[in-house]
Amino acid sequence: MINDTNAVLRAIRERRSIRKYTEEPVSRDHLTAMLEAGQWAPSGLNNQPWRFLVILPGDERREELAQCTKYGHIVRNAGALVCVLLQREAMYSETKDHQGAGACIQNMLLAAHALGLGAVWLGQIINDQAASLGALGLSPDDYELQAVLAVGHPAQRGDSQRKPLTELLLEDF
Amino acid sequence: MINDTNAVLRAIRERRSIRKYTEEPVSRDHLTAMLEAGQWAPSGLNNQPWRFLVILPGDERREELAQCTKYGHIVRNAGALVCVLLQREAMYSETKDHQGAGACIQNMLLAAHALGLGAVWLGQIINDQAASLGALGLSPDDYELQAVLAVGHPAQRGDSQRKPLTELLLEDF
Repeated sequence: MINDTNAVLRAIRERRSIRKYTEEPVSRDHLTAMLEAGQWAPSGLNNQPWRFLVILPGDERREELAQCTKYGHIVRNAGALVCVLLQREAMYSETKDHQGAGACIQNMLLAAHALGLGAVWLGQIINDQAASLGALGLSPDDYELQAVLAVGHPAQRGDSQRKPLTELLLEDF
Repeated sequence: MINDTNAVLRAIRERRSIRKYTEEPVSRDHLTAMLEAGQWAPSGLNNQPWRFLVILPGDERREELAQCTKYGHIVRNAGALVCVLLQREAMYSETKDHQGAGACIQNMLLAAHALGLGAVWLGQIINDQAASLGALGLSPDDYELQAVLAVGHPAQRGDSQRKPLTELLLEDF
């Protein structure tokens, strides 16, 4: 299989959501490499509407953010949080900017995996924009929170399944 | 730099939109590997709302699709088109399913790059859903077109730039 010998295809296939982390800190170099990966995502008209905010342990905004989601325990235990936002004045299309944010997030999740880190895409936390942006000291007039990525050195193996490809293809080719 | 020695980080950084292709066909194995990469994207609640339709040269839907976009010349010259759709009955959140589609698309673009193919994310083609879905014989009641990926063996080097990371970070960390 092509997948087994190609490092990129393997990473795409083997990446899993990791929700438990050791106490080892996440280095600034690793976080920077993740952010640079996010930065290189494609966007419509190359508008690059994404903005990043990194929250490290000790930052009091972490606890405020934890209270905005039922996954607060993950927020509290992560080695770092990468908040991914869209800057409203940089947006050009609701749908395409959300897609672009997804591409940006996926680049960062793959980068984390490739660096030996574990990460999870926290999505439920964006449901109450006023609360979660408020926890970060930001206004919904200026930003739309897209996700919080919890990152750390993995203390678990992830596990997940996918539908068979035949169910996803509208017709054979 | 970490980026230079890590195959995944390099692929993320070096992937470019490729809009010109040679006449060499895209193999079924390569297309399958791309689709499998898309399949392994994360989605909220693991709902996997994406569906795929591959259009090969000779399929008359290709010309109909070409007429739905000002980038019809790319559609006509690609070795293959991968249409990425969301199935409405599998969706749970407009925003998060669009983000998930973006993650899925990015996986496929990275896979194409990793396989030595070139690809481009066509987004303007989704603006008129009725027309583009009609070209594919699908109904907007059932599907939402997310993008068409044009794929082929590259006949150009891509070129693109990104804002410096300092402009994307709301604050230093």
